[in-house]
Amino acid sequence: MAAGGGVRAAKGILERLDSGEVIVGDGSFLITLEKRGYVKVGLWTPEAVVEHPSAVRQLHTEFLRAGADVMQTFTFSASEETMESKWEAVNAAACDLAREVASQGNALVAGGICQTTVYRQHKDEARIKKLFQLQIEVFARKNVDFLIAEYFEHVEEAVWAVHVLRAAGKPVAVTMCIGPEGDMHGVSPGECAVRLVQAGADIVGVNCRFGPWTSLETMKLMKEGLRAAGLRAHLMVQALGFHTPDCGKGGFVDLPEYPFGLEPRVATRWDIHKYAREAYNLGVRYIGGCCGFEPYHIRAIAEELAPERGFLPAASEKHGSWGSGLDMHTKPWIRARARREYWENLQPASGRPFCPSLSKPDA
Amino acid sequence: MAAGGGVRAAKGILERLDSGEVIVGDGSFLITLEKRGYVKVGLWTPEAVVEHPSAVRQLHTEFLRAGADVMQTFTFSASEETMESKWEAVNAAACDLAREVASQGNALVAGGICQTTVYRQHKDEARIKKLFQLQIEVFARKNVDFLIAEYFEHVEEAVWAVHVLRAAGKPVAVTMCIGPEGDMHGVSPGECAVRLVQAGADIVGVNCRFGPWTSLETMKLMKEGLRAAGLRAHLMVQALGFHTPDCGKGGFVDLPEYPFGLEPRVATRWDIHKYAREAYNLGVRYIGGCCGFEPYHIRAIAEELAPERGFLPAASEKHGSWGSGLDMHTKPWIRARARREYWENLQPASGRPFCPSLSKPDA
Amino acid sequence: MAAGGGVRAAKGILERLDSGEVIVGDGSFLITLEKRGYVKVGLWTPEAVVEHPSAVRQLHTEFLRAGADVMQTFTFSASEETMESKWEAVNAAACDLAREVASQGNALVAGGICQTTVYRQHKDEARIKKLFQLQIEVFARKNVDFLIAEYFEHVEEAVWAVHVLRAAGKPVAVTMCIGPEGDMHGVSPGECAVRLVQAGADIVGVNCRFGPWTSLETMKLMKEGLRAAGLRAHLMVQALGFHTPDCGKGGFVDLPEYPFGLEPRVATRWDIHKYAREAYNLGVRYIGGCCGFEPYHIRAIAEELAPERGFLPAASEKHGSWGSGLDMHTKPWIRARARREYWENLQPASGRPFCPSLSKPDA
Amino acid sequence: MAAGGGVRAAKGILERLDSGEVIVGDGSFLITLEKRGYVKVGLWTPEAVVEHPSAVRQLHTEFLRAGADVMQTFTFSASEETMESKWEAVNAAACDLAREVASQGNALVAGGICQTTVYRQHKDEARIKKLFQLQIEVFARKNVDFLIAEYFEHVEEAVWAVHVLRAAGKPVAVTMCIGPEGDMHGVSPGECAVRLVQAGADIVGVNCRFGPWTSLETMKLMKEGLRAAGLRAHLMVQALGFHTPDCGKGGFVDLPEYPFGLEPRVATRWDIHKYAREAYNLGVRYIGGCCGFEPYHIRAIAEELAPERGFLPAASEKHGSWGSGLDMHTKPWIRARARREYWENLQPASGRPFCPSLSKPDA
Repeated sequence: MAAGGGVRAAKGILERLDSGEVIVGDGSFLITLEKRGYVKVGLWTPEAVVEHPSAVRQLHTEFLRAGADVMQTFTFSASEETMESKWEAVNAAACDLAREVASQGNALVAGGICQTTVYRQHKDEARIKKLFQLQIEVFARKNVDFLIAEYFEHVEEAVWAVHVLRAAGKPVAVTMCIGPEGDMHGVSPGECAVRLVQAGADIVGVNCRFGPWTSLETMKLMKEGLRAAGLRAHLMVQALGFHTPDCGKGGFVDLPEYPFGLEPRVATRWDIHKYAREAYNLGVRYIGGCCGFEPYHIRAIAEELAPERGFLPAASEKHGSWGSGLDMHTKPWIRARARREYWENLQPASGRPFCPSLSKPDA
Repeated sequence: MAAGGGVRAAKGILERLDSGEVIVGDGSFLITLEKRGYVKVGLWTPEAVVEHPSAVRQLHTEFLRAGADVMQTFTFSASEETMESKWEAVNAAACDLAREVASQGNALVAGGICQTTVYRQHKDEARIKKLFQLQIEVFARKNVDFLIAEYFEHVEEAVWAVHVLRAAGKPVAVTMCIGPEGDMHGVSPGECAVRLVQAGADIVGVNCRFGPWTSLETMKLMKEGLRAAGLRAHLMVQALGFHTPDCGKGGFVDLPEYPFGLEPRVATRWDIHKYAREAYNLGVRYIGGCCGFEPYHIRAIAEELAPERGFLPAASEKHGSWGSGLDMHTKPWIRARARREYWENLQPASGRPFCPSLSKPDA
Repeated sequence: MAAGGGVRAAKGILERLDSGEVIVGDGSFLITLEKRGYVKVGLWTPEAVVEHPSAVRQLHTEFLRAGADVMQTFTFSASEETMESKWEAVNAAACDLAREVASQGNALVAGGICQTTVYRQHKDEARIKKLFQLQIEVFARKNVDFLIAEYFEHVEEAVWAVHVLRAAGKPVAVTMCIGPEGDMHGVSPGECAVRLVQAGADIVGVNCRFGPWTSLETMKLMKEGLRAAGLRAHLMVQALGFHTPDCGKGGFVDLPEYPFGLEPRVATRWDIHKYAREAYNLGVRYIGGCCGFEPYHIRAIAEELAPERGFLPAASEKHGSWGSGLDMHTKPWIRARARREYWENLQPASGRPFCPSLSKPDA
Repeated sequence: MAAGGGVRAAKGILERLDSGEVIVGDGSFLITLEKRGYVKVGLWTPEAVVEHPSAVRQLHTEFLRAGADVMQTFTFSASEETMESKWEAVNAAACDLAREVASQGNALVAGGICQTTVYRQHKDEARIKKLFQLQIEVFARKNVDFLIAEYFEHVEEAVWAVHVLRAAGKPVAVTMCIGPEGDMHGVSPGECAVRLVQAGADIVGVNCRFGPWTSLETMKLMKEGLRAAGLRAHLMVQALGFHTPDCGKGGFVDLPEYPFGLEPRVATRWDIHKYAREAYNLGVRYIGGCCGFEPYHIRAIAEELAPERGFLPAASEKHGSWGSGLDMHTKPWIRARARREYWENLQPASGRPFCPSLSKPDA
């Protein structure tokens, strides 16, 4: 299969999904750019789009090459609430960067918003909707292709977000950062999905906070909830690139390793092959990643689903399928690793015999 | 301590080392750019410098921001032997990229060569020296600041390299990819160091193949060998960013996880703090990394040795010391992680209970 | 608290439980005597009672000294079905041995039966009840104090057992070898408990197949089931002495380590302290062990619940509370281990870095 | 091969070893009887021989059945120094018990002494030799077959012991509780062996403190030391039944798990098969165990070396070779475990995902 594929028609996200296309999302910005030196833990704000645009452009480019069909604006927490007067410039610059890279391929630009801290403090619906509205106005001006409201712990606030986004006249995707136990008020994943679709979301799912396998469990519950309610929507998953079988309701932020000791939990590309396949089999058609998803993880999604999509991503020019690049190695025992069965069955050692394999969440 | 530091005088590598300065090296190019989509495993060649220069420029920039004092040309395996007619353009472009970024800070440019495959096949000294000579000529033309011969399994070939580099009139650093058991012909690390210094190297040490702790053990043996021989040289270490307590004489390439399942072995920034401190205490003054060393690992070296160096790197503007950025978190149990003792003592879980902690090397 | 305690009145099991007394059960016979050389894996039959009675007597004695209030006859699988003509002599000898040792303390003798293999093959109720009846007749002749039907995978067969035992006029305890997922026909633990109590059991619970924590989860479900049904019964737990967080519905026999590689899973005495306390807090008042429970594990139950019981077991004369025997050690770092907090918090290493911490069940 | 073997002639230990016979030693008394309720940690004294003789007799019997050729008197630390006036009765009773059981098979009785605490306090050679002498006099009166001086940290004291034992006119075996780093004064294993043989020992080796693989490394060094010195002696190993790859010079007592959290480190029978084979291949012909070696571990030695010895031990009547007893199991996936390759390759999980695989010694 040739890398890259031909030019595809400029269709919208819903046209693509409605026609059965698999959409590959992009991956981690905050955690990845923190490691590259452009994001500060704690603040987790995207001022890099104005301070170091070439670093952000580079990351968008890597995800595009890896096969992402969507360039999400790097506007996480970029509201007036957290970035004060800088917010507008940041949102505008983020849209420009996303569009610049998207136009080099066949990608769509999605304007992204996320939960507020206001909600946890006093649930001021008007204030929260206003914050969303401000970002949406920039996205509208910059003419993004669709909107994503993500990382909601409470379905109530997510529903408010959908209401605001809905009014903008663009397709609306919404994801919650919940696990199988549901939202922080105890609303089950199935019920969350139902409320979001009833509020008008076109695409629903989860992002962040939980690793691949846990996120797929949550998706299964969302799917069942929708079916039981007789509702239909496109499904979307953007899991962590970390293994978190041990996290509790609050997800990975409660693990003792968050955020500076997560290295041993990073998924291999082969883990992501399985994740992509299982997501696909579950009926999810918008498959990407969140924190910890590096470009090569996104490429793994695109490679796993290349048969369905009909093409390999550009970055596969630098990647032999299932380790085949090793078949020319001079050492025979390394050549022997150039096969799918080897990597599918490898149980990689941590190199850390003084460390446990699971942790107890702090909360 | 302010991030960035003031402008320092444009001194050469030996002037700096002779004056007692700590030199922070740069980190991983091949493995890091593989994950970003620009390098192919198996070939491990740096054609990205001509194909995707902005990706290479970006990585140089990240290392510079992280505190690296040296921009090594991305010319690993870029000899006529492995890259055929492309070799010259690649070496030239790599020099230009390194210089472009270095000039934005106070960094030096080092032209880099590595072992040949010719050596293992027929030890043709003339041919091997010719290959080295060709690259050196480009480096001379581009006026790099000093030269690094790295990743040698056999001290004999490394000595040949030093001979060629020595003739170029630039300071010469040389590192071998060996562990405490010595080179592939059974020459001990101490004896390797002696031969390299006697051949004319100014700086000797190890790079790649072994994790931080093993590499420091090897350095200790090199240091002892030099002392026993009454020789002096500057010491240099560029370890893997992976934990490899279980590897044998051949290093990490023989571990079953190489190269596509190394994720659980990636060092945390706190591991690198310890590595930098121990290297310093051992008398090593050129401290960097090799495969697996991401920009934030290099920043960890620069932060650990900031008291000795007198300044923090630029990227520390995006990094609170020892997790202090967490002190504003809304969850008290996460705020409680904003302290040095916490991260120094954390034994991070792998999240992989079905995996062992050590592997048996394949060879 | 003095070891041993005074002579207590010869009360029956129900009198004791009704008065709020904590009953300490005994532990592992098959697995323990296998390691001592008297039981064959696969057969798992108790012919040792006639072949090597002193070995069986010794183990009873150890459990008595450890604080067990019950000497269960070593008659597991000692039915006509599995032992043919030997069955009667084995049952009789087992009763004599149990009584001989019980009479040296204040212990009760419980005659024990278990599930048949007939059931899984053709559910011949009459045949199965007949097999139970034959053993009960020996127990009646030997005048055991009460009866235990244990290790049932199917509640239907357990109910049949209760019917037969009920008719013997002795108090009846019944335990199933199920986990939280319920019996092999999918009957939940709560429903199992309800059916068994309705069938006439005085004491209900679980034994074997699952480790301490899983068994307590199952007990919680049994307790809830009874409460929801408005029923009351005494609760009994005899968990494995192995940690099995990874087993599936079938329990530890499906783990790859069963039965010859279970060593790394053996509980420490401190694990059993927690188990005893949690069982007690849950309202369970008959607390013992099954496979893997060595005499010192039973002693740990008796020591943990000594405040409630008012005395320490005889074997505590050879055991300092919470490691206090180490306070006279010559090495200060070993003396430092002579305290409760140390052992409560120890996470013991396996000494096996090439092994995982969890396994996938074979079924 | 039939279990039990025929009657063999009553030959002495040296005749047997000289004729090339493999001698199977016995196993753990202190740790095993602690778990059975008869020995107190801290004191570690064998008063059980008078207080609970049937418990000690039973353990001897189990080792005899398991294939042990030697019944070592349970007289560890049973000197006047630690047991005061009781010492003589204890030594006498221990001899009687060992002889009683030995005479039921073809086993030899070995009188055992061990290091003193006097030595560490003031190296009073006369006092120490007197303590040894007192025990030896009982052994002589009871006519044991040979003598074992064991568990010496300092070769100097071990040499004194050999001098005293030598004078008794019985064959002398001596073992040190050291690892590859040598004795507490830094005397290497090779040099220890040389001094002990020069002092008159017939059999030299190691016991306790280190697991199987480490103890075999030490034996290799002892063997090399003897060969280099041109000396010959029979070699003997009685390793721990615990895996201790992580212990330092002081052995397992310095591990945080000692002595109440060692469970996850217990060797499987299959580990012991390998240990027996490797010991045999190394030329060791007296192969037994120390702390943690249960009867089934001794049986594993006897089964592994049955081809060389020509018979299986009595307890093999209750043990199918390499798990063959499982071949009649009703579940096919358990039947599939009835083969050597399965158990040889099993990497058993700990069932403890919150625990590490290695510990750091406390000293």
